[in-house]
Amino acid sequence: MKTEIICIGTELLLGDTINTNASYISQKLSELGMNCYYHTVVGDNPDRIKQILEIALKRSDLLILTGGLGPTDDDITIKTLAEYFKEEMVLDKDSLDKIEFFFKSIGVEMSETSKKQAMFPKNAQIIPNSAGTASGIIWEVEKFDTKKIIMTFPGVPKELYRMWEETAHNYLKQFSDRVLVKRVLKFMGIPEDTLGEKLKDLMEYENPTVAPLVAKGEVNIRIAAKAENTEKALELIKPVEQEIIKRAGEHFFGSDNDTIEGIIGNLLLENKLTLSTAESCTGGLVSSRLTDVSGSSAYIKLNLVTYSNEAKIKMLGVSEEILKTYGAVSEQNAAAMAEGVRKVSRTDIGLGITGIAGPGGATPKKTVGLVYIGISNGEKTEVHKINANFNGERTDIKFFASQYALKFLKLFIEKNYQL
Amino acid sequence: MKTEIICIGTELLLGDTINTNASYISQKLSELGMNCYYHTVVGDNPDRIKQILEIALKRSDLLILTGGLGPTDDDITIKTLAEYFKEEMVLDKDSLDKIEFFFKSIGVEMSETSKKQAMFPKNAQIIPNSAGTASGIIWEVEKFDTKKIIMTFPGVPKELYRMWEETAHNYLKQFSDRVLVKRVLKFMGIPEDTLGEKLKDLMEYENPTVAPLVAKGEVNIRIAAKAENTEKALELIKPVEQEIIKRAGEHFFGSDNDTIEGIIGNLLLENKLTLSTAESCTGGLVSSRLTDVSGSSAYIKLNLVTYSNEAKIKMLGVSEEILKTYGAVSEQNAAAMAEGVRKVSRTDIGLGITGIAGPGGATPKKTVGLVYIGISNGEKTEVHKINANFNGERTDIKFFASQYALKFLKLFIEKNYQL
Repeated sequence: MKTEIICIGTELLLGDTINTNASYISQKLSELGMNCYYHTVVGDNPDRIKQILEIALKRSDLLILTGGLGPTDDDITIKTLAEYFKEEMVLDKDSLDKIEFFFKSIGVEMSETSKKQAMFPKNAQIIPNSAGTASGIIWEVEKFDTKKIIMTFPGVPKELYRMWEETAHNYLKQFSDRVLVKRVLKFMGIPEDTLGEKLKDLMEYENPTVAPLVAKGEVNIRIAAKAENTEKALELIKPVEQEIIKRAGEHFFGSDNDTIEGIIGNLLLENKLTLSTAESCTGGLVSSRLTDVSGSSAYIKLNLVTYSNEAKIKMLGVSEEILKTYGAVSEQNAAAMAEGVRKVSRTDIGLGITGIAGPGGATPKKTVGLVYIGISNGEKTEVHKINANFNGERTDIKFFASQYALKFLKLFIEKNYQL
Repeated sequence: MKTEIICIGTELLLGDTINTNASYISQKLSELGMNCYYHTVVGDNPDRIKQILEIALKRSDLLILTGGLGPTDDDITIKTLAEYFKEEMVLDKDSLDKIEFFFKSIGVEMSETSKKQAMFPKNAQIIPNSAGTASGIIWEVEKFDTKKIIMTFPGVPKELYRMWEETAHNYLKQFSDRVLVKRVLKFMGIPEDTLGEKLKDLMEYENPTVAPLVAKGEVNIRIAAKAENTEKALELIKPVEQEIIKRAGEHFFGSDNDTIEGIIGNLLLENKLTLSTAESCTGGLVSSRLTDVSGSSAYIKLNLVTYSNEAKIKMLGVSEEILKTYGAVSEQNAAAMAEGVRKVSRTDIGLGITGIAGPGGATPKKTVGLVYIGISNGEKTEVHKINANFNGERTDIKFFASQYALKFLKLFIEKNYQL
């Protein structure tokens, strides 16, 4: 079944909105093992929409449309479809009730224009929208002597997602004779090119396919297998996954929805450890990322953002001599911050991070992006020196510094505690 | 001049990559006052690419292509174009030199396949790529008895951006007889619907247009004017901007690239104030956002993330009685945290934030998303109670809590210090 996606909305053509709907639908189709051959974006113009319908119906069997289902005059998708197929529009009572209920619940009288959201081509099946007032349709029609299917969805992503999960996926399953199962392996501390070189022969496989995915501060490798069912797809994935880990396992940290902060959380819980952070250049970002993990209050008690030298001395007990002799951005200070926060927070491990986030603050010897990361457990203290400056942006330098800090923290726990 | 964008790449049709290139080019075209009528995405397949070229050349004058300029066998854009127009390919010496130089600089011998990146249709003008090895072309051709223009760019966004700024923009300016100038006004603390209702009549304007833009935790209104030059466009924007601020100024906080944290930074600097934060549920996010601002070390000295009750007592001097009687998530604790951090950090203003980020930790009376924000300057202490739970996601609850905290902080400074 040849499928294509048509997104309707002038805002897409003005570049105001990024077309994430097309990616979402494409992903969902590929998970069903269905082939999508084209995406088209067209504005809110009936003639151009009809021309696109004509082109698409000639080459595809299933057209998935998004956008143009709202109550305003610009929203013309359903009306234009009915006109194109010369089909009359009928009122759907359920949809009307829902729209009326919505207006009642917000205490506003329903406008005449809103009623149009309850009008659909005769014989079209309704896709209910549990997240909004714009219902979609599944419409099986004849065109060019073939059965064609048209599906419509609103342009609001969360409504589309809900309707896809609740209705569209089940409807489309009947056309799917295979599934696509994906597994993402996540790596840190290895450049994409280097990892790609190691996996070069695997990337030529056809089933499963192996491909790198762009991810900020990580390198992700996706293995995707097509098979008649999930179990068989996983059987195809397994040996390839093992081979990849065999070749680059030292940089592997997790898969699929794993995050480095979640992995660290699990390591801390498993080893019954607590952690504290003292941040300078990252300004609280490491702490914020660590506490993105649900349940992190089990191992995080007190983190400090010691931005000034005075705070480093007073709160962490960093010696004035270190700051005077080596400066705040130094190996010695990173170690002292790690050790200091460990003591003040009374945790097993302390992490200290200091550097130059820029754009100011650099010296000829200490350039923007220079970051020292100290980790201490009282017995051992290690310091890593890194360059977190990839594009000069302050917020990116903060992010990459936090990413390195989490990476070294994970390795530290594994090296010193892992059973 | 009718323009359309064609993006070539199977990864787009699989949904692995979001088509940000089409949005970027659309934005750039609309800034030049040029109309883009279609986006098309097609896979790395020569027949389908040729069919798309045929369709596009019939309806448009300028085709902007992205993707498929790399060195691998999948990259067929230039070759397919030459085949479609039956034009021979010739070697561009400058491009070849650049590719050779690149390989030399990384110490790798240039492969035979890489040479193909220096082959272009005869008479095509080269668009140099200062960020990679894939040059593009500007190719003026005859088709359907009309002059058509084809431009190609690599799919790697940063290469496209560079080539657009360095070459394409200047080339296209000759076709542009007007400019589009945009101004974005940013609002917080007013729902999008409510603001939309206030500006309803303005949104019907044709030049400038007034439209809401989606933004997380903010409501943005874009005013866009077309005119023969920037000055005249700004003249059109000005009265509309003033009218919008007149109607909803109390929720307005900045425009264009302003951020709430940057605005707060300016307010603190102007009023010579220092600030400290004590965070519980947001885990350091408020501190991290405040320090995203370059130069924030002028007003931030020491921030605390007091996750445990013990840390709240020990570091901030919150009384055990408050925690026992009202709990950590309470108005009383938020006030005590604000006051406590102000003292320990010796700053003019202290901000305390405590709440339930979830998914655990809720009680029947204190649900996920309940957040108290305390702000104190020693003389005045105020506490705001908010619900930051919009979709149940922990990281979103943290974000919205930080957003409210920054909003109330800005109002506090304006109310108590602003000249």
